[in-house]
Amino acid sequence: MAEALTLHEDPRSGNCYKIKLTAALLGVPLATRAYDITKGETRTPAFLARVNANGRIPVLEIGEGAEARFLPESHAACWYLAQGSHLIPEDRFAQADMLRWMCFEQYNHEPNVATLRFWLHILGEERLNEAQRGNIAAKREAGIAALALMDEHLADHTFFCGDAVSLADIALFAYTHVAHEGGFDLADFPQVAAWIARVQATPGFVPMQ
Amino acid sequence: MAEALTLHEDPRSGNCYKIKLTAALLGVPLATRAYDITKGETRTPAFLARVNANGRIPVLEIGEGAEARFLPESHAACWYLAQGSHLIPEDRFAQADMLRWMCFEQYNHEPNVATLRFWLHILGEERLNEAQRGNIAAKREAGIAALALMDEHLADHTFFCGDAVSLADIALFAYTHVAHEGGFDLADFPQVAAWIARVQATPGFVPMQ
Repeated sequence: MAEALTLHEDPRSGNCYKIKLTAALLGVPLATRAYDITKGETRTPAFLARVNANGRIPVLEIGEGAEARFLPESHAACWYLAQGSHLIPEDRFAQADMLRWMCFEQYNHEPNVATLRFWLHILGEERLNEAQRGNIAAKREAGIAALALMDEHLADHTFFCGDAVSLADIALFAYTHVAHEGGFDLADFPQVAAWIARVQATPGFVPMQ
Repeated sequence: MAEALTLHEDPRSGNCYKIKLTAALLGVPLATRAYDITKGETRTPAFLARVNANGRIPVLEIGEGAEARFLPESHAACWYLAQGSHLIPEDRFAQADMLRWMCFEQYNHEPNVATLRFWLHILGEERLNEAQRGNIAAKREAGIAALALMDEHLADHTFFCGDAVSLADIALFAYTHVAHEGGFDLADFPQVAAWIARVQATPGFVPMQ
């Protein structure tokens, strides 16, 4: 890939890490530009106008200068990087099933497992508003349900889709391996813990920080 | 496509409609089996064991009997049906950008625009618990932000990715065109309203019910 690739990120974000892990497993060079989301650095007029009108990271910048194109959403950026590689299965069902687990991550896992980590570990409980405090119990319950479903699936699967790491594993690994920072105990999910070790043993693996 | 396709659905669900609209635009026959999610019909032991351990619809059943495979998550099912068709752009960036809008739908749009419709129109406000009532204002604000971002994008785009309908339009159409049932006023988003009419004018279009 000849084009310049720059990841607009907050280094503490698991969503940004998904893209860095994808690039690492593919051996693709990726520059980074860091923002602090807790200080509103992705809501400035310049960021909204040039990088992402949605005011969120990660955003993958493809190309440079006036020709640059911007791709928000972690899974879209992973897909862009991994197209045609071993990280996306070719088989029709397997490819859709990979997207199924990525959707599950976005809808059932990330809003609970990642959000509690953000609230409790990055923001800090004393900075939460009343509505956030009122949501902790429901997010705890939903996060545990998501981890339990993963544990059940991994009881008879090496990786989420077949016998090799795919984008589904990358997507789910990002916030699962730091779930303890949101108060989840992975000792309750032994299949998940074993899968985390398998992902970490993948050639080219890089840790989150 | 020779294999039997059966959609496990609740006919009121926009997520299920995404799959039916995809099949219709492709001319692919799709059988349906209906469940009432407000009566717990997708949480029975039989459903959890055979159709989806996550207890949710939609699920696309591919094949029949002992050979059947089950694909949960609306966007994964749409992807399965549309692979290799005109509903998925071939260009590398365009394909990833389509997924970007589908991720946006799942993360920024559906949990707000669709959830308020479910709470206010399908469940009914009198059946909401205290935590749900406490979340209405935040979901209203986030839903308006999602619709505003769509409106801004559509000011200079015919469809979400280029000049033709793609899965991004199908994903975003499903809950946007019934957003008024969740208390949103599409008169505030004229570009969105015009795009809705363009999607409805697509050859093969079928309405939600």
